[in-house]
Amino acid sequence: MKQKIQRSYIREILDATNKETISFAGGLPNENLFPMDKLKNASIKVLENSMSMQYSKSQGLDNLREKIAKLYTEYFDFPTTKDEILITTGSQQAFDIISKTFIEKEVLVQTPTYIGALSAFKVLDLKVKGFNYIGSLNYELKKESGLYIMSDFANPNAKSLDKIERKEISHILNKTNSYLIEDGAYSLLDFEGKIEKPISALYKKSFHLGSFSKIVAPGLRVGWIRSDRRLIEKILVSKEALDLHTPTLNQMILNQFLEDNDLFEHLKIVRDNYKDKMEFMSNCFKKYIPSFKFEKPKGGMFIYGRFDEDSFKLAKEVLKKNIAFVPAQVFFADNKKTKEARFNFTNSSKIEIEKGIKEISKILTLRSESIWFKMFKERLFS
Amino acid sequence: MKQKIQRSYIREILDATNKETISFAGGLPNENLFPMDKLKNASIKVLENSMSMQYSKSQGLDNLREKIAKLYTEYFDFPTTKDEILITTGSQQAFDIISKTFIEKEVLVQTPTYIGALSAFKVLDLKVKGFNYIGSLNYELKKESGLYIMSDFANPNAKSLDKIERKEISHILNKTNSYLIEDGAYSLLDFEGKIEKPISALYKKSFHLGSFSKIVAPGLRVGWIRSDRRLIEKILVSKEALDLHTPTLNQMILNQFLEDNDLFEHLKIVRDNYKDKMEFMSNCFKKYIPSFKFEKPKGGMFIYGRFDEDSFKLAKEVLKKNIAFVPAQVFFADNKKTKEARFNFTNSSKIEIEKGIKEISKILTLRSESIWFKMFKERLFS
Repeated sequence: MKQKIQRSYIREILDATNKETISFAGGLPNENLFPMDKLKNASIKVLENSMSMQYSKSQGLDNLREKIAKLYTEYFDFPTTKDEILITTGSQQAFDIISKTFIEKEVLVQTPTYIGALSAFKVLDLKVKGFNYIGSLNYELKKESGLYIMSDFANPNAKSLDKIERKEISHILNKTNSYLIEDGAYSLLDFEGKIEKPISALYKKSFHLGSFSKIVAPGLRVGWIRSDRRLIEKILVSKEALDLHTPTLNQMILNQFLEDNDLFEHLKIVRDNYKDKMEFMSNCFKKYIPSFKFEKPKGGMFIYGRFDEDSFKLAKEVLKKNIAFVPAQVFFADNKKTKEARFNFTNSSKIEIEKGIKEISKILTLRSESIWFKMFKERLFS
Repeated sequence: MKQKIQRSYIREILDATNKETISFAGGLPNENLFPMDKLKNASIKVLENSMSMQYSKSQGLDNLREKIAKLYTEYFDFPTTKDEILITTGSQQAFDIISKTFIEKEVLVQTPTYIGALSAFKVLDLKVKGFNYIGSLNYELKKESGLYIMSDFANPNAKSLDKIERKEISHILNKTNSYLIEDGAYSLLDFEGKIEKPISALYKKSFHLGSFSKIVAPGLRVGWIRSDRRLIEKILVSKEALDLHTPTLNQMILNQFLEDNDLFEHLKIVRDNYKDKMEFMSNCFKKYIPSFKFEKPKGGMFIYGRFDEDSFKLAKEVLKKNIAFVPAQVFFADNKKTKEARFNFTNSSKIEIEKGIKEISKILTLRSESIWFKMFKERLFS
């Protein structure tokens, strides 16, 4: 029997939201920061060429792959050529094509971890198991299995691995000879602009996933896989069978955008804005819901913390008032109950952030008042 | 062990071709017929809205799905609502998400059939079996298995099923309760503009696949699945896990294009041009390679016929002279040797068509001369 998979709670929320919803739920970048004029100019240029609307190579356009390779070589301290890059339709697609080709049975993931990765693995009938600390990988990671890691500003908890942890993981991988899937979706979103060397640079049987979704715009659905040339050749078969190739137009628009503009100039604007929003949301939490415990993130798009109560129930209640956040339960491979929750700070305005958190605090206060009232009644009539 | 899949011979040819190659190999529409100005105007309009670059719904944009539903209702005699449409990243993606969700073991396919479908099924470790005539489905088609059919101007042999055949297939499907995957990639490419009612209109557990690739432009990679609402809801999970959603920008461009233009006016231009090219190629074959046996197609993009010799060897030889066509061997699930071959007539100019076929005829003549010479020598010295 095919494994029964639930639709992603987050995608369901995204589908359910309307213009009135204050949503901290999605992983949506801020559309007001999309470089629309520059993307429009790039589009107009490439639409002069009818080949932008024609079929193209399964591996992706040469000139775009060259630019991505350069990004690794120059900024990630990870020498790369265009043959080591495969363009994917969003980095989401990478999970499917890598797993299909290489992973037999099991994938180990961080706890908590990105829900889209969990679904992708489960749809392929793979066993997904969370590991709690790096040392446990020594006995939990099996041969020919996969390890999925987000090293920088992980979704959902915004944590990064330090240099020692990266080394330790590469060491364990070398012993077990398993496949590393390292997700770099947020790697360029350090508020101070720092860029860390990926674990993939220390281990050959690795796939480093990248995406333009968080650094330019997600509506183009262009991501990539960086890997050893021979591994790229193998996954090319699955990529081709899946959608022949990633849209030519979208690849050409991005290539033109990168040719005519400085990506890091654009990124500086994004990072500064996100840092400001994060600080603002942090202050709102401190002011209105001091019981919500969290550490301020140093990059990425989320504040991850802990309520005093089951966050799944709270999220459902809050959604009735048209406010959305994600209870962390959905980020655990075993779907365990938790008080933790993820808040996105990039897609809402400051007014919405304050209004939303105030509203949640009201719900919490009403609830605790009704608990007091209940206790009071019980005392009175007992 | 994961099933070992070869890269598609056609995609390899596409990757290998250069500007000098005369290629009859790909299924490429003619880029000179892409409505570039109209697509550019549509793009400029939608790029005014930053939501064109944002994440969007997994099922696809409402307004585009409405337009596709209307196409079925008004032109295919197949009443359809937008809830019965799921937008896919090229119709190629449909094979993966349908099979993953519903097909347990086996898919029956026409012989010969579309190579991209064969790879998609094989990548998922499904058993793929060709059937030779419709009656044989009565005992070959098993419960919970899949049947893949291209009813109109099939790739590669350009044949269509008549009304009686369609009824017969729906009758067998009703008995076995299996899943029908009906591919309508070429359904709107009848040279006279006729449109046939799909088998899917006669059977509920069916998926009718459509695509803008052949009727507008393939570089956008936008296709769709038409199915029962409850089946759509089920495959939505796989779609979402695969690439979250099809690029927002591309869907909005197509929606705007369809809003501002008459699709059928554009299609008339395409169909007339393709018919003219087909007649020209037919005449070239008759003139230069009269031994190549074929029936003139009534629509679609291919001439399919039979050489006097193994077409795989011939294709390899011809490729050395920078001319590409596809030997039919790759279109058979069991990869059997054949003398048949597929020629695309849409993507080349008349000059290229004549030059290419003349060149192949030269190779054939030289070869037969050398055979005569060999026989002559043998006689002489025996």
